[in-house]
Amino acid sequence: MDENRPYMVYLPPTYETGENTYPVIYLLDGDIHRFKGFVGVLESLSTGTLESQVQEAIVIAIPNTNRSRDLTPSSLREWKFKGRVLETFKQTGNAKQFAKFLKKELIPAVDTKYRTSQRRVLVGESFGGLFAAYTLIESPSVFTDYLIIDPTSLWDNDYLNLSLNAGNRDKKFNSRVYFAFANNSHLGDIGLTNYKWGSTFASSVIDNNDAISQQQYFENETHGTVAFLAWYNGLKTLIPTTE
Amino acid sequence: MDENRPYMVYLPPTYETGENTYPVIYLLDGDIHRFKGFVGVLESLSTGTLESQVQEAIVIAIPNTNRSRDLTPSSLREWKFKGRVLETFKQTGNAKQFAKFLKKELIPAVDTKYRTSQRRVLVGESFGGLFAAYTLIESPSVFTDYLIIDPTSLWDNDYLNLSLNAGNRDKKFNSRVYFAFANNSHLGDIGLTNYKWGSTFASSVIDNNDAISQQQYFENETHGTVAFLAWYNGLKTLIPTTE
Repeated sequence: MDENRPYMVYLPPTYETGENTYPVIYLLDGDIHRFKGFVGVLESLSTGTLESQVQEAIVIAIPNTNRSRDLTPSSLREWKFKGRVLETFKQTGNAKQFAKFLKKELIPAVDTKYRTSQRRVLVGESFGGLFAAYTLIESPSVFTDYLIIDPTSLWDNDYLNLSLNAGNRDKKFNSRVYFAFANNSHLGDIGLTNYKWGSTFASSVIDNNDAISQQQYFENETHGTVAFLAWYNGLKTLIPTTE
Repeated sequence: MDENRPYMVYLPPTYETGENTYPVIYLLDGDIHRFKGFVGVLESLSTGTLESQVQEAIVIAIPNTNRSRDLTPSSLREWKFKGRVLETFKQTGNAKQFAKFLKKELIPAVDTKYRTSQRRVLVGESFGGLFAAYTLIESPSVFTDYLIIDPTSLWDNDYLNLSLNAGNRDKKFNSRVYFAFANNSHLGDIGLTNYKWGSTFASSVIDNNDAISQQQYFENETHGTVAFLAWYNGLKTLIPTTE
């Protein structure tokens, strides 16, 4: 990436005293607050606090340096929807490079430094969800599990479905995937279409998937609030202790 | 209490750099995992991670030294329900003394050491919920808010309702109270009765309350798993930023 990329690490309660290996969860948009929030969910669910419903895991939180650059899969100066400019950006379209950084640099570094299993979960929300979905299409085997939260399906005029239908129509998936969608109908056409396109993409993935996968719609949560219940339900779906 | 009582402290993100005072949340059964889990919910909800829906707050987690002694309001060696012994204990019935410790020692110590507001939230689950309900009946003004999670309403043959109906029938409440109940129907009569008695108690409190109060039933959660959604919904109900 031609830059320093710091990251934060959470080690599970039994890490220090045991010799087990652990799944690794990569958390996008990994600022300190999101990191502590996510770790709180994981720590509760993986200990006696909530009956050890999910596996203990390592968390690697990756803060942004240039969000729109790293998390978007195509280059757009102006992001438009039905002729209307939603947002303008200095840099976009670097997802391929960021995915390569994860695969070739960060994951090997983490695997060398910590006792990791082969299980890798990618957690992304909004643009992070767009990036996770892009990675699922283009390099699904980099991660074994995908927790995709209200992805920006509106990106580049239905980028995700177009991409899937273009080069990957007959693609068979074999990754565990959990999609969470929020109720953004207060945003009108933008919110409704983002859900429609996202849900269509999710259905295509789920219908062609040999692994456990599902999508869930949260009527009472919006784009900015859905993450928490998505983490809670997503972790229980993807890495239960019962598997 | 004639013993050392350690506690853990969480200070909110803006504490170090500002001069504000903050509500204080007292978390019962406050072991390290529950503490980290609860703090994760609070940190997410009180920062931009989830749109700052709830107020920032200080958390004081109180680990147990003798759980059945401190959290139960009456002395029972054998805890029975319909003639059947549910559990036997070495010590019970010390809730009055524990409440006094909170009021006379812990709360003043915290108020001296940290920048606290007058807002105090007590969070208790199971026996901790029983204790919180007991405190609400006997010394409601020690806390301004009560987050009561699947309380052990089965204690001492409907202790809570009997106590409310005996000395406190016409009691008017003026504390914010949020009750969460789990679906424990898999436990048969025990689970169903615990909910029935708990819900009856909650209704009495809510019907005679001048402050915002509510109860919520979680169909898909059990006694051991309901805490998380209770924290999430309870904090949004009790200390929203919109008030």
